[in-house]
Amino acid sequence: MDAGKSEGRSAVELAAALFSPRAVALVGASGDAAKNTARPQRYLSKFGFAGRILPVNATRATLFGLRAFKSLNDIEEHIDHAFVMVGDVEGAIEDCGRKGVPVATIFADGFADAGAEGMARQRKLAARARALGVRLLGPNSMGMINLSGRCPITVNAVLEMDAPAAGVTSIVSQSGTMLGTMLSRGTARGLGFSKLVSVGNESDLGVGEIVEMLAADAETQIVLLFLETVRDAAALARGARAAHAAGKPLIAYKLGRSKLGERLARSHTGALSGEDAALDAFFRDCGIARVDMLETLVEIGPLLAGRSPPDLGLFPGRAPRVGVVTTTGGGAASVVDRLGMHGIETASPDPRAPILDLTMGKRAATYGAVVEELLAYPDCDAVLAVVGSSAQFHPQHAVEPIIRAKRSPKPLAVFMTPQADRSLALLAEAGIAAFRTPEACADALHAYFSWRTPRAQPKADPPRWPADVPAAGKLNEHEAMRLFAALGVPVVESAVVRAPRYAHSIAYPVALKILSSGVAHKSEVGGVKLGIPDEKDYARSAAELSKKCETLLVQKMEPALGEAIVGYRDDPVVGPLVLVGAGGILAELYNDVVLRLAPVDEAGAAEMVAQVRGFAALRGYRGLPQGDLSALARAVAAMSRLALLEGRPVREAEANPVIVKPAGAVAVDALVVLK
Amino acid sequence: MDAGKSEGRSAVELAAALFSPRAVALVGASGDAAKNTARPQRYLSKFGFAGRILPVNATRATLFGLRAFKSLNDIEEHIDHAFVMVGDVEGAIEDCGRKGVPVATIFADGFADAGAEGMARQRKLAARARALGVRLLGPNSMGMINLSGRCPITVNAVLEMDAPAAGVTSIVSQSGTMLGTMLSRGTARGLGFSKLVSVGNESDLGVGEIVEMLAADAETQIVLLFLETVRDAAALARGARAAHAAGKPLIAYKLGRSKLGERLARSHTGALSGEDAALDAFFRDCGIARVDMLETLVEIGPLLAGRSPPDLGLFPGRAPRVGVVTTTGGGAASVVDRLGMHGIETASPDPRAPILDLTMGKRAATYGAVVEELLAYPDCDAVLAVVGSSAQFHPQHAVEPIIRAKRSPKPLAVFMTPQADRSLALLAEAGIAAFRTPEACADALHAYFSWRTPRAQPKADPPRWPADVPAAGKLNEHEAMRLFAALGVPVVESAVVRAPRYAHSIAYPVALKILSSGVAHKSEVGGVKLGIPDEKDYARSAAELSKKCETLLVQKMEPALGEAIVGYRDDPVVGPLVLVGAGGILAELYNDVVLRLAPVDEAGAAEMVAQVRGFAALRGYRGLPQGDLSALARAVAAMSRLALLEGRPVREAEANPVIVKPAGAVAVDALVVLK
Repeated sequence: MDAGKSEGRSAVELAAALFSPRAVALVGASGDAAKNTARPQRYLSKFGFAGRILPVNATRATLFGLRAFKSLNDIEEHIDHAFVMVGDVEGAIEDCGRKGVPVATIFADGFADAGAEGMARQRKLAARARALGVRLLGPNSMGMINLSGRCPITVNAVLEMDAPAAGVTSIVSQSGTMLGTMLSRGTARGLGFSKLVSVGNESDLGVGEIVEMLAADAETQIVLLFLETVRDAAALARGARAAHAAGKPLIAYKLGRSKLGERLARSHTGALSGEDAALDAFFRDCGIARVDMLETLVEIGPLLAGRSPPDLGLFPGRAPRVGVVTTTGGGAASVVDRLGMHGIETASPDPRAPILDLTMGKRAATYGAVVEELLAYPDCDAVLAVVGSSAQFHPQHAVEPIIRAKRSPKPLAVFMTPQADRSLALLAEAGIAAFRTPEACADALHAYFSWRTPRAQPKADPPRWPADVPAAGKLNEHEAMRLFAALGVPVVESAVVRAPRYAHSIAYPVALKILSSGVAHKSEVGGVKLGIPDEKDYARSAAELSKKCETLLVQKMEPALGEAIVGYRDDPVVGPLVLVGAGGILAELYNDVVLRLAPVDEAGAAEMVAQVRGFAALRGYRGLPQGDLSALARAVAAMSRLALLEGRPVREAEANPVIVKPAGAVAVDALVVLK
Repeated sequence: MDAGKSEGRSAVELAAALFSPRAVALVGASGDAAKNTARPQRYLSKFGFAGRILPVNATRATLFGLRAFKSLNDIEEHIDHAFVMVGDVEGAIEDCGRKGVPVATIFADGFADAGAEGMARQRKLAARARALGVRLLGPNSMGMINLSGRCPITVNAVLEMDAPAAGVTSIVSQSGTMLGTMLSRGTARGLGFSKLVSVGNESDLGVGEIVEMLAADAETQIVLLFLETVRDAAALARGARAAHAAGKPLIAYKLGRSKLGERLARSHTGALSGEDAALDAFFRDCGIARVDMLETLVEIGPLLAGRSPPDLGLFPGRAPRVGVVTTTGGGAASVVDRLGMHGIETASPDPRAPILDLTMGKRAATYGAVVEELLAYPDCDAVLAVVGSSAQFHPQHAVEPIIRAKRSPKPLAVFMTPQADRSLALLAEAGIAAFRTPEACADALHAYFSWRTPRAQPKADPPRWPADVPAAGKLNEHEAMRLFAALGVPVVESAVVRAPRYAHSIAYPVALKILSSGVAHKSEVGGVKLGIPDEKDYARSAAELSKKCETLLVQKMEPALGEAIVGYRDDPVVGPLVLVGAGGILAELYNDVVLRLAPVDEAGAAEMVAQVRGFAALRGYRGLPQGDLSALARAVAAMSRLALLEGRPVREAEANPVIVKPAGAVAVDALVVLK
């Protein structure tokens, strides 16, 4: 087969070869049952794989009763999927190319996961496979498990368990062992799964493309992601939009939330893990719901299945509200307390009781009637049902009123306070979201309320690069200001002044700064004079600063009610980001910064501004005068248009501070770093 | 028996009657097996209670094969413990008094849990019981379960389970149903328990006194608390110190962390739940370890058992460090990422690997050898062992290297990534802390590192109330300043000035304020003039302010590097608290405030100051000039001495701001509210 011949292979054909091959070659299959390379053959047989299993082993003629082949080349029939478990990965891929195998899954590690040398090896391998027309899963992949199709192509020991149930949930994981963890835990809970994919190093087939395939997969209704990093944000965004379009919730658990975790993920995957806040903005924009706890990922599926993102927004509307019914006050409180920490509130049709507690006959109504009442109650957005000890000893009796309650489109979450495996399984079978811990239950409701429809790219004319600003090299502050102005960011009145007279026509008081593209922190080198009251002082200041730099920038002093930082960054992982934060050192000290993918429109920017805690002082807090936060939002939206510039030449831009006034907001400092 | 006769009953006798009675009366025992009031008799029989069971039932002569009595008065023998399950609680307690029953547990609710009327009923009941010499558990108690002594006196349906294992952990819970939850979950995990006490409304026997009894209980080695509130902080502090002295870790999970949860706890218990930050300071000071997640409470015991608080402190020392061994990179990362969010770091004897990953033969050493290596490795403070799929399919093989590893005094936590019930139980049997979720595992390690030895009350001479400050009524700012000065808080130079001349001898610039004990927020009524440069301006300002108030306070203007708030509060729940926070509105906006029980010494105050994030600007952040944070700490310690004043006359005090200078710190505003 010619190199590149498969380029035109359809997504449907690719998915079929990956998930549901008719013939699977197991390259490097072992005849020693104790070895993990013997597992794939055993699992395929155990799960009743209906296709052909073709073991490739250099020394044996048969393997566990099947004919074995010396090499791929000895196999005459067509192979859809090769599982490569040998060290000579390169040789095996050459064979795959020759045989026209469309998909090869590579188990070996020692590629991007193993330093610069391994990374180079991986690049070469991926390029060669592309040339040969072989799509790769891995390297460093534990394989793919198609439970609904009875096709496990994996070394994952999790399949030692009794055959796990098939279901509508698929999982894509960057950790092969954690795929096993989720299958093991989910199965114990009565949850079923469809496809489970260990993507390994993602040298070719990555999380995004696989999500796209699952969006098109008739057997998949929910997709879960276990992520250590995001290697191809654009592909994941495409996958996420496809999943949304297909009405399939996509839910992610991502490591690297702490700096320590981020370092570990980098050392473990060989990939940039990306700043967590940037990824959070990315997930939100793509319509990916994000959970904080591992068990939530396993449990949340039924809560979101068949639902659309609520798109409530905590601002400018009200907080989300949950109606609560319980047979244990303490058990309900353990969830509600945590909901409160997420800014979620309770709502109850009984004004005397924030939660409806049926403990020991406190209320006459039956449990089922109260569940129905809350599901129909218009003032709550979701329902939480908490069940005490009956869940342990009378599972059928405990879950029946919940299962039989007349459903509404409102999400229903159940928390079982005792050890109640059977009750949890019964609810799982009925497709009702049930949680083992109060924390995961609250985390899931929070993830649901934070879940958003993928944001449409705002249609906007791309801004033009100003003719008088150089398009390469470093920009000085005056040039950066002109660029900001061209985007629509209001900038302070300013003028470049030179020796000997430093003449200008700006009204006093003014500020004076050295104008040098080489100095990022002018204040720290004494290159800034603020509040110059008159001409005399101005002449003195100019003389002083001119010793540091010949060209100076004079600016009108703007009286401030408050200060903000407005920034832009073309992130190597998720692409263009816009940020707004409290001014001064608050943004950094209190991490009081809100990030979104750029560009944002004015409404999006206003939502960002509303989330900056430090702006409370500008919202009329404690009788303080109000600042024009709408103007600030417009400046944020304008700054975000840097993402629309052709070729995206800007790596980083910052207006710090932007002065917020009673009417208007104006950037008084500008920094732009080109790529 | 005369009223009050039992006052002298020893703690040992009381504990025997509560936990290990020889004769138990079940007042209101039902003959209908379906009723929960029939449960206690059934459970006592089922668990093999060796003492006498004495059912009291108005209409039946026998109950499930035992002789029943019409009333307590009909019983001739001595009764150690009466479980009162009738509505006429008052009548039953009279009977107990007459019979000389030392302990009565009351199941009925409708007391403090049911509004003002119920609260009055409870007060009356408790007073009468005290007069009669009957100690009360409850009302609203589900009873007491002594597993090691085979004596369950409870209506808790959790005992429908097969006999749970006895062990060394006891639990005290304000929620009866959650006691069942913990027993149910712990038992499923192979954990054993000794005494489980549902304290209900704590009208008499409360959490603190019961902890004190458990500290003296030979069968108890660990005490767990499920709290919705703290009703008697002094008693709990005594119990906690007793537990510490006995070498028994005391660990709390407390609801009401969010405002929503706080409101719910109040409505549920009828008690002030207290501000969570204040309770957090209280737990820390008493040596109570606090966990954030419910499951951590069940699982953490073995991690702390037999250990003392580490007293590391995150400042001024280094961060705590955990050594990690794993057979799954992703599994270890899920814990480590979370440790990082708590400021905990990893330490590894291999400089190339932050965690020791044995996945698929990545390291030659055996699992057990690496566990031992880390337990012996001096640069880590605790060891985390993560086990992948082998924990599910080969539990014995998976846990053996951990169980057999030569132990060191260092704590060892194990996280099992798959569903691995058997492995968890094997570790529990071996007394090794094993966790089902990465979050609970990280939470437990964090709780361990945050655990502190109960703080000794610093020995300090009580301050004297200054003779020229009124000891009652409201203090004006000048009087408040004099009180602060008497405590040792440096205060700004100031003088009271009056019409017509408002003469003073303070150097300009000065500040001028109205001096009125009736106005708390002087600035908001225009009662403050700052930065008055000279005499002329002073005269003008004095004339203006004198329209609002005749008497004025003039103060030296203190140039500020930064501002702080230093406060004191006699909290109704935990008693005297001292606080320090970032100045201006930061303390409130970012909740950047640190609380401790008062008094604190200078070292304790320095630790508090070190935890205020906003002071970064005063610690030389980004080249900013450094402020005298030691002087601020001394001011905090001085303010905290308000707690030592005889009779504790001060309800609340605040110096806001305290100006932090390059050398020294000085209070420029003072507010004192007396009780």
